[in-house]
Amino acid sequence: MAILVVGSVAFDSLETPSGKRERVLGGAATHFALAASFFAPVRVVGVVGEDFLPEHEEVLKCKGVDTQGIERAPGKCFHWKGAYLRDLNEADTLATDLNVFAEFEPKIPPAYDDTEFLFLANIDPVLQLRVRRQMPKVAMVAGDTMNYWIHAHRENLLKTLRELDVLLINDKEAQMLSGETNGLRAAEAVMALGPKSLIVKHGEYGATAYFSERSFGDGLKRRPFRAPGLPLHEVVDPTGAGDSFAGGFYGYIASQGKLTPEVFKRAMFYGSAMGSLAVERFGTERLQEATRAEIDERVDLLREISHL
Amino acid sequence: MAILVVGSVAFDSLETPSGKRERVLGGAATHFALAASFFAPVRVVGVVGEDFLPEHEEVLKCKGVDTQGIERAPGKCFHWKGAYLRDLNEADTLATDLNVFAEFEPKIPPAYDDTEFLFLANIDPVLQLRVRRQMPKVAMVAGDTMNYWIHAHRENLLKTLRELDVLLINDKEAQMLSGETNGLRAAEAVMALGPKSLIVKHGEYGATAYFSERSFGDGLKRRPFRAPGLPLHEVVDPTGAGDSFAGGFYGYIASQGKLTPEVFKRAMFYGSAMGSLAVERFGTERLQEATRAEIDERVDLLREISHL
Repeated sequence: MAILVVGSVAFDSLETPSGKRERVLGGAATHFALAASFFAPVRVVGVVGEDFLPEHEEVLKCKGVDTQGIERAPGKCFHWKGAYLRDLNEADTLATDLNVFAEFEPKIPPAYDDTEFLFLANIDPVLQLRVRRQMPKVAMVAGDTMNYWIHAHRENLLKTLRELDVLLINDKEAQMLSGETNGLRAAEAVMALGPKSLIVKHGEYGATAYFSERSFGDGLKRRPFRAPGLPLHEVVDPTGAGDSFAGGFYGYIASQGKLTPEVFKRAMFYGSAMGSLAVERFGTERLQEATRAEIDERVDLLREISHL
Repeated sequence: MAILVVGSVAFDSLETPSGKRERVLGGAATHFALAASFFAPVRVVGVVGEDFLPEHEEVLKCKGVDTQGIERAPGKCFHWKGAYLRDLNEADTLATDLNVFAEFEPKIPPAYDDTEFLFLANIDPVLQLRVRRQMPKVAMVAGDTMNYWIHAHRENLLKTLRELDVLLINDKEAQMLSGETNGLRAAEAVMALGPKSLIVKHGEYGATAYFSERSFGDGLKRRPFRAPGLPLHEVVDPTGAGDSFAGGFYGYIASQGKLTPEVFKRAMFYGSAMGSLAVERFGTERLQEATRAEIDERVDLLREISHL
């Protein structure tokens, strides 16, 4: 079943201990779409500038991603410049040039109306909610957010959270959103704000899923579930790791067509596998060359390193 | 088969978000011995002062721990005062009164000569090495250390590391010891210093075991293995969590009598189970009242939250 992702399509300028890259293709929707494309048809709603060339669009199209929802606007693409020199888990933002993204108003092409799975990548929660309202028939809604929206746009974010089946955030964001430092209490507080289920990402250590009585529509509350991260010799570029996790996770669920506890757990492993691939090269390089066989192999590996 | 632990038997004064306790029984050897006592006969070598009363010794003895290696010295027990108010993962040390521990010279009772499993808890690496030399016939040696010894006594520590089958440390210690920030490369660098296998603890996220070609005597190098931590609603007192992990891990191995990859992996789950129990109450309270059935239940729970 098809996934629609709304979010940024951007260029990133990156510096990590492994090197530098100028203006490589990036953005949350790009990473998500590439990762999810291995599992299900993916549609993208976003905005790009005149510097988004056919060769960039081809990166998505050659994975079968439907790009008719990517609007062209006069000006330049969103550009983010960041460095991970102190700590691979946290970027220092050196520049954020919103460019065409500043006036982004998501428009859903009519051909996307039959989308079953909606993913609201990390954008203004007002826009997330507007998109969600335009897609009343979707079977499932998942989304991401970040510290900026939690701090400065909390009221708007709270409205979006009420619409989510699954929210994906990291440890710091869960603490910030809940005011709780204990992971389990933070998760319960976040789910009380709306999301039926919550995935908290722990960087290299993996991710934990938390469930509420509303997670699977049967009124049963299940225990958390932890998926490991894969120990890697070198993290070349952490940018997009979280979006790639989300793409693998959500893509796998869409490929199964329904959300059961077993599907959710396996999806966590696919998410971790996609995240571990994405960081092995700069930008989208690694996801572009990955194969489904390689992804399944990595899921087997994650099972091997965590199962008795 | 029997385990001998050499380390501190102490009193701890603790402050955490859950409350305060003055001079409760603690010390690495105490936590380790209690945790390991559920699995195998445990013998303790340490030193205590005149404030170590029969009621304190009884905490160990009622779990079957052999205390004849605990030497009495004039003066007071080692006393540590710490607070976890900023961060439950890191204590602020408010006072360290070495007392009788300052002159500690481990003496192995002749009755301990047939010990098969030696655990060198976190003490001066010179003493760790001296104890190891006095026990040439042990089948397996595991040990712990900390930032202080890594920084200020590195040369001595390196001699001890060469004697270890398994070293147990946390992420920061692994980084400090290896000079590597990448977890996998840090682990390989630490094992190159001597330990055949390495366990790196990640606090609430669990722990990762790393193996070398020397881990199981068959020349085969195996992939890392990750055991999850158990999400808990309240961490009352993190003191001794690492020692309890080590006690559960090593106790389980001793109970199996041999070190195979399968035993090592299950031992990681028993370690995580004991660590998760230990932190639920202050000091040794929770380990004192735990039952083997409860421990096995917790291992089942760890499997449930991590296995597909």
